[in-house]
Amino acid sequence: MSTNFIHDNFLLENKYAEELYHNYSKNQPIIDYHNHLSPQEILDDTVYNNLTKVWINGDHYKWRAMRTLGISEKFITGDATDKEKFIQWAKTVPYTMRNPLYHWTHLELSRYFNVTDLLNEQSAERIYESTSEKLSTQDYSCRNLLRKVNAELLCTTEDPIDTLVHHQQLEKSDFEVKVSTAFRPDKAILIANYGYNNYINSLGKAADINIESYQDLKDALKSRIEYFHDNGCRLCDHGLNQISFVTYTERDVEIIFKKKRKGDSLSKEETLKFETAILLFLSETYHEFGWVQQFHLGALRNNNKRMHSILGPDTGWDSIGDYSQAEKLSAFLNQLDSKDKLTKTIIYNLNPADNEVMATMIGNFNDGSVRGKIQFGSGWWFLDQKDGMTKQLNALSNMGLISCFIGMLTDSRSFLSFPRHEYFRRILCNLLGDEIQRGELPKEEMEWIGKMVADISYNNAKQYFSFIK
Amino acid sequence: MSTNFIHDNFLLENKYAEELYHNYSKNQPIIDYHNHLSPQEILDDTVYNNLTKVWINGDHYKWRAMRTLGISEKFITGDATDKEKFIQWAKTVPYTMRNPLYHWTHLELSRYFNVTDLLNEQSAERIYESTSEKLSTQDYSCRNLLRKVNAELLCTTEDPIDTLVHHQQLEKSDFEVKVSTAFRPDKAILIANYGYNNYINSLGKAADINIESYQDLKDALKSRIEYFHDNGCRLCDHGLNQISFVTYTERDVEIIFKKKRKGDSLSKEETLKFETAILLFLSETYHEFGWVQQFHLGALRNNNKRMHSILGPDTGWDSIGDYSQAEKLSAFLNQLDSKDKLTKTIIYNLNPADNEVMATMIGNFNDGSVRGKIQFGSGWWFLDQKDGMTKQLNALSNMGLISCFIGMLTDSRSFLSFPRHEYFRRILCNLLGDEIQRGELPKEEMEWIGKMVADISYNNAKQYFSFIK
Amino acid sequence: MSTNFIHDNFLLENKYAEELYHNYSKNQPIIDYHNHLSPQEILDDTVYNNLTKVWINGDHYKWRAMRTLGISEKFITGDATDKEKFIQWAKTVPYTMRNPLYHWTHLELSRYFNVTDLLNEQSAERIYESTSEKLSTQDYSCRNLLRKVNAELLCTTEDPIDTLVHHQQLEKSDFEVKVSTAFRPDKAILIANYGYNNYINSLGKAADINIESYQDLKDALKSRIEYFHDNGCRLCDHGLNQISFVTYTERDVEIIFKKKRKGDSLSKEETLKFETAILLFLSETYHEFGWVQQFHLGALRNNNKRMHSILGPDTGWDSIGDYSQAEKLSAFLNQLDSKDKLTKTIIYNLNPADNEVMATMIGNFNDGSVRGKIQFGSGWWFLDQKDGMTKQLNALSNMGLISCFIGMLTDSRSFLSFPRHEYFRRILCNLLGDEIQRGELPKEEMEWIGKMVADISYNNAKQYFSFIK
Repeated sequence: MSTNFIHDNFLLENKYAEELYHNYSKNQPIIDYHNHLSPQEILDDTVYNNLTKVWINGDHYKWRAMRTLGISEKFITGDATDKEKFIQWAKTVPYTMRNPLYHWTHLELSRYFNVTDLLNEQSAERIYESTSEKLSTQDYSCRNLLRKVNAELLCTTEDPIDTLVHHQQLEKSDFEVKVSTAFRPDKAILIANYGYNNYINSLGKAADINIESYQDLKDALKSRIEYFHDNGCRLCDHGLNQISFVTYTERDVEIIFKKKRKGDSLSKEETLKFETAILLFLSETYHEFGWVQQFHLGALRNNNKRMHSILGPDTGWDSIGDYSQAEKLSAFLNQLDSKDKLTKTIIYNLNPADNEVMATMIGNFNDGSVRGKIQFGSGWWFLDQKDGMTKQLNALSNMGLISCFIGMLTDSRSFLSFPRHEYFRRILCNLLGDEIQRGELPKEEMEWIGKMVADISYNNAKQYFSFIK
Repeated sequence: MSTNFIHDNFLLENKYAEELYHNYSKNQPIIDYHNHLSPQEILDDTVYNNLTKVWINGDHYKWRAMRTLGISEKFITGDATDKEKFIQWAKTVPYTMRNPLYHWTHLELSRYFNVTDLLNEQSAERIYESTSEKLSTQDYSCRNLLRKVNAELLCTTEDPIDTLVHHQQLEKSDFEVKVSTAFRPDKAILIANYGYNNYINSLGKAADINIESYQDLKDALKSRIEYFHDNGCRLCDHGLNQISFVTYTERDVEIIFKKKRKGDSLSKEETLKFETAILLFLSETYHEFGWVQQFHLGALRNNNKRMHSILGPDTGWDSIGDYSQAEKLSAFLNQLDSKDKLTKTIIYNLNPADNEVMATMIGNFNDGSVRGKIQFGSGWWFLDQKDGMTKQLNALSNMGLISCFIGMLTDSRSFLSFPRHEYFRRILCNLLGDEIQRGELPKEEMEWIGKMVADISYNNAKQYFSFIK
Repeated sequence: MSTNFIHDNFLLENKYAEELYHNYSKNQPIIDYHNHLSPQEILDDTVYNNLTKVWINGDHYKWRAMRTLGISEKFITGDATDKEKFIQWAKTVPYTMRNPLYHWTHLELSRYFNVTDLLNEQSAERIYESTSEKLSTQDYSCRNLLRKVNAELLCTTEDPIDTLVHHQQLEKSDFEVKVSTAFRPDKAILIANYGYNNYINSLGKAADINIESYQDLKDALKSRIEYFHDNGCRLCDHGLNQISFVTYTERDVEIIFKKKRKGDSLSKEETLKFETAILLFLSETYHEFGWVQQFHLGALRNNNKRMHSILGPDTGWDSIGDYSQAEKLSAFLNQLDSKDKLTKTIIYNLNPADNEVMATMIGNFNDGSVRGKIQFGSGWWFLDQKDGMTKQLNALSNMGLISCFIGMLTDSRSFLSFPRHEYFRRILCNLLGDEIQRGELPKEEMEWIGKMVADISYNNAKQYFSFIK
């Protein structure tokens, strides 16, 4: 049964919202400045053959929904066939109403495949066949999926030890979408993690430095930052439950690091000293290279140890933490600022209860030197839905300037999730359109508001990330 | 003056909401799976004679409102006559506009007594007389009040030392509403509380075990769980400001418990060790018996020591705490899960700032084994109002599956508070109806959405609490 | 271009809202019971000459917006001319859409100057000239600005060492607006602050007491409270990130204070003991004098040390903290209550995530002795906007009685910010009007709801602050 669910004015509830979206936003290119896509698949121009491969495999949002409904792991990450898995997901979809999955699912089916049926147990097979047929053609290759959504640039996320070989080859290729990267050194920071010393060995190899001392570690990281920089990288990312900030001396940190390298375990205090020191070092280095730094704060990860031990990280066992954030984040940013080494920074938080803390924190370090220098990042992960985006947009608006906001990013692992930019843009336009209708914004300023929409959709990010030509 | 305030479509703001409520929800029976009603009053089929006895006495929501307005304690818990107290409450009602008391009051007057006047100083006497007349008849006996609202099952809350004699007699009686219980062992857990040792003595007597060691305590609690189980109980409940989770050994706990039994005071760390151990023991035992466990987290109780010392607990001196919840709750659930001893669990939180923490926490342990195994409980206590329910429903929807939600419970001490199920259902239907009208849910899926509404109103709870035949 | 942006029914979205505002609220006088205005300017009846002087200088809300947009400090606090600064602010205004600055700006231009053009780069010069012309006349003197908005009383904020000479002279003057003060002893409490001992010396001089011991300090503070009281003060205020509450003995505090006076540094624990003791002492003294006490909790101040060192406090480098508030605030209020020394209290919180904690906290100590004795203060600082006010009003309504609320205050440093009372009143009326239209409040109770509006706009504050005749 074909529906008109995802119509032209989906989520746009009045004429102002429609005008803003259609005239100022929808045709803007996409700068997806943070995601977890595979550069190798882009390089290989992978053809996926069916929806399970490109849409369900790896998508822990869908997995969590299926598990909540009581679907066996066999049909999620297990040995069921791709088709069986798809059927189970299709069966789940009607139960996801009010969850963003319901909108994302139908938006993605519509935008990439012109499927206007609602996905459910009845339509599952038909949709699986028709989309598989399309996905088996070159027209639905990885690169063509990116072309379909008017992507201009995307930044994947790589570990410091990555060779960036795929990015290098993509740079030389004729693919017109720019594929850059973000440097993500979490594994070098989280010294209490299992496998830390092995990781440091790998990092040493990548940097061609035998890492024995903390100075060696800093040299190695700086070397990798330089390498990433030479390969066009201008962005980094950190995923931390909260920013560590304790007093330390360089000598403390040398001793702590050597202790760890010898295999001794560290106290909580030692761990915090090390994390404080290395993060400050990294941030100063990013400033030296003129990068943008990102902090994703507030996740409580790998809660279900049993399932984590079977499936590994990023498989759907994470949630929102309730860490105290304000004082340490402030002290950290201030430490950098007071040396004039605070580079452009984007802060994302996972607990929406902290939205106002973050929306005001950025103002403390927006000192007039750069427009929108410190950014409060768009609704992230669990908050990447209408309610979460709206709360982020409202907090930022009320306590800062939404006009300077660099807008949306997918943070996604799937090549089919770019319609989330459209989703964000519709929500933004509807929010503004609603206020115009209520008289909270002046009707006669439609052109200006349209410019704001275009800026948030595209221009602000383009200007902010100066490496985009 | 008769009004049309509580009309058929109260809170239902469009035709979709109306259709959902009237066709799919309002006729569903009520499963009130958690409340604090008196089983003795049900057994005795008490007749209350006037509204003060059944509606004001014991209702600390109303008391707080009256105190805020500046009404003397004499007219609240003091020695004023029932009628004088009612007049003071009636005078207060117009001042409660925007507080849920205003809606509850008129909904309850309407549903039980067909009173459509607004309650205030002017109407007070007339309403007091007309309702007293009704309440003095058998038609308004305790059981008939439950019949009027189509209650199918209710679970009261009892201490482990309770004999369950009223439940046993009710089971044998011809009362067609099933009256079960929930096991609530807070007094056995909170070892730092005044009177702990006396309580343990009573528990020992109830279990016929001389409790000297921690092992004795565990034996006694298990014996009482067994006793409750044999009397049809399949549910427990815990009221804790936050979950304790620290490392301990069984030997530590033995020493701590003996120390307490000798009358020595415990350190904070000892208290936490004991609480961690005993709660894990209890939860493992619930799993063994196939029970559902409930946790009510986040209250800050008995803040006004002066009034608490006069009136005792649950008299209106409690508020919302801002405890850190996520890490310890996660560790606790994980500890049980990793031994495969995590039973079905409902988590309620009192601070709405933690809604998203809870809505994502449940997903960490929904592993596909049971549909909706871990539940985020409905808006509790101070959150049991339109705004609070809506926020809970939104957080759950955005971060989980509302389709699997087991819905509303009264948590009440009054036999007149069952219209809160109606209140919840109207709010739920209006939320969905609003989204249908906005095009956020597809209009053509009304039947499916109706099924979701029926499930949340009744079927999900029926399926979840397997002891309901 | 003249617009109709700020029209008669601005923010009033239906006829009920309009009726409530126009019939019950707009003509009520203003009791601005907490602000940071200069009593000297009122005494001098200052004429400001241009908008920069009275509207931009000192207004860190505007400064933060300008800095976020990337405007150089020269045009904010620097040596640019008044006109240059105004032009830069005007250029910023269109970028502040959705921030309360956009509404405040146009509301203030309209109410004081009849300017109905939108302020932007194009209109800047014209508006600067026309407003400067007006501001240079006696009709726009400080006192006349207060008369224009129908102010009845205002309370400025003074340090205990203040001579209150301006207040004394104002009292004797023919100025019909009552100008009182609030006693703000933060500098005497925050013993860890830089310059504490110098401040104590000044306090000693003001009280004519040589402060060597803690007892001397208490004597000095009590003497100043008495002095303020004799000069008509009945109100105090405290700005604290959170309430300190630890156990101490008077002897501990004597030792700690002497240690500090000798120039030794204090441990964290010592600081907390002192802060607990002195705040309890002050609060007991306020009770003795029958004052109202205010607590502004939750700010994280002076985050940007570099800019703070250049510009000093209150220049736009503050943000919202995420401190734990509930347990200590409860213990503090309880300590006073249990001695029957808890005076009327207003609690403001800066983190909206704590709204529900505060809205329920006040209920713990509203014991029927005084109507609305403990108040949850109106949306403060970053929360002084539609969203923030609405959340505060909703939390208070859902968990307390909005009918007893004492309403709005500006907390402002500008003589042009009184239209924020109008802003609040419109938001309040619209909230109620919306619920009347939805049927959540009964239409036939318009007169009662109107009375509630009048009470919140004016009568409740007048009754609460008993020193207002």
